[in-house]
Amino acid sequence: MAAEFSIIHRVQFSETDMAGIVHFANYFRWMEEVEHAFFRSVGMSVSMEHEGVHVSWPRVATACDFFAPCRFEDEITLRLRVMKVGGKSLNYEVDFLKGETPVALGKMTSVCCTIGAGGMQSIPIPAEVRERLERA
Amino acid sequence: MAAEFSIIHRVQFSETDMAGIVHFANYFRWMEEVEHAFFRSVGMSVSMEHEGVHVSWPRVATACDFFAPCRFEDEITLRLRVMKVGGKSLNYEVDFLKGETPVALGKMTSVCCTIGAGGMQSIPIPAEVRERLERA
Amino acid sequence: MAAEFSIIHRVQFSETDMAGIVHFANYFRWMEEVEHAFFRSVGMSVSMEHEGVHVSWPRVATACDFFAPCRFEDEITLRLRVMKVGGKSLNYEVDFLKGETPVALGKMTSVCCTIGAGGMQSIPIPAEVRERLERA
Amino acid sequence: MAAEFSIIHRVQFSETDMAGIVHFANYFRWMEEVEHAFFRSVGMSVSMEHEGVHVSWPRVATACDFFAPCRFEDEITLRLRVMKVGGKSLNYEVDFLKGETPVALGKMTSVCCTIGAGGMQSIPIPAEVRERLERA
Repeated sequence: MAAEFSIIHRVQFSETDMAGIVHFANYFRWMEEVEHAFFRSVGMSVSMEHEGVHVSWPRVATACDFFAPCRFEDEITLRLRVMKVGGKSLNYEVDFLKGETPVALGKMTSVCCTIGAGGMQSIPIPAEVRERLERA
Repeated sequence: MAAEFSIIHRVQFSETDMAGIVHFANYFRWMEEVEHAFFRSVGMSVSMEHEGVHVSWPRVATACDFFAPCRFEDEITLRLRVMKVGGKSLNYEVDFLKGETPVALGKMTSVCCTIGAGGMQSIPIPAEVRERLERA
Repeated sequence: MAAEFSIIHRVQFSETDMAGIVHFANYFRWMEEVEHAFFRSVGMSVSMEHEGVHVSWPRVATACDFFAPCRFEDEITLRLRVMKVGGKSLNYEVDFLKGETPVALGKMTSVCCTIGAGGMQSIPIPAEVRERLERA
Repeated sequence: MAAEFSIIHRVQFSETDMAGIVHFANYFRWMEEVEHAFFRSVGMSVSMEHEGVHVSWPRVATACDFFAPCRFEDEITLRLRVMKVGGKSLNYEVDFLKGETPVALGKMTSVCCTIGAGGMQSIPIPAEVRERLERA
């Protein structure tokens, strides 16, 4: 039932560290890379306006389990799965695959927020956004 | 009982994103920053030799919960707590504090490994290393 | 005559790459780190307001020459020298030193700009800012 | 006469900063991204072996001029031009284009080096590598 969406990320030299493998913090950038590509694939940008106000999706929780290292020039498939479109939040998981082999599993919870002069404020996910996320 | 160790990290401009707050992937770099400072505080480097072999600590799992954003030039206290020194693995948590206010909580599990021509191989944490970690 | 200002940057694991040395893009982050610390040292933040408008300092040119590599846990002295406070722009250089040995030399030109709805617009450096930069 | 080679880089959220534009240090990562893609396009990896020794290409000088900002989700064309294949070094330039409009110009000089126990040592560019770079 869950929407799935995949892209391929080629490992860059600047993403490796002195252990000769991808530095683990980069997996979180890649999770976001496939998330934002998924938003574009359903006709939206994660940096959106709603009723004249700027909307963003700050993270409230994220996690990653690592099974095997990624190396320079590896082509890693990032496969996003929407787990839940809640009232104000979005849950997804990302499989990191080298060929068919899972090398990591990431999880993310984001909250729909307006950004204004007074800072961030969570809001119900706008109906049109929800529809696009659920229909994917 | 758990060892605690703290440093302060000043938020850099390059760590912010277009939402005006620290990009969440940086929290994982900061977790590592306090971990490595902790190793130094007990007389070790995380990049160590043991019986003539290079030892490293790849991550097998990490997570972070975010309570409030960090901004440019904030001074964030990173307070590391060793939760468990296992047979081959190390567990710790990191409190991220702005003043006295917790803004995030991170968790990490690393495994002690040798790095050689044949790749990474997990090994029991060397006795001297264990002692230094537990005595901290 | 030129103002000089120094900080020490400890090389982080995440700043190294698979060649075992600091990835060269990080030198530009460090240049900015000492620039912003210098602004703080003269009582300013690089993220400033002037006459109710937000002011920023986008870069128009930067360069770096590399003489010797930096490695994990090295303590690198970043020594900033203001070369010129122009009408709208600021020029500085940064010596990267390992102990007394220069390992790199960086150069930067930034322009004083307002950021508003219509994008960025260069402006004369405000008198008070100029004074603080020149008096340093 | 000079070889030209282009790729497109989509600006990621994590590459922006609180000024709402791409942080300038990322241009150096992008320069490297197109360099390494160019190496692959001529059948090589920048992480290569030569006569049983690991070869790498540390940078000795780099620079970038910035004409206009890049923003989230922009598609930036990175167009590399080999300027000179010297005895031991490689010179190239990178045009950064938004559509047809140049937004930045980067320059890089790398040196061919072996990496061994004793550190880095510059070597003449191997004949086969030179041929591939010049024939491109």
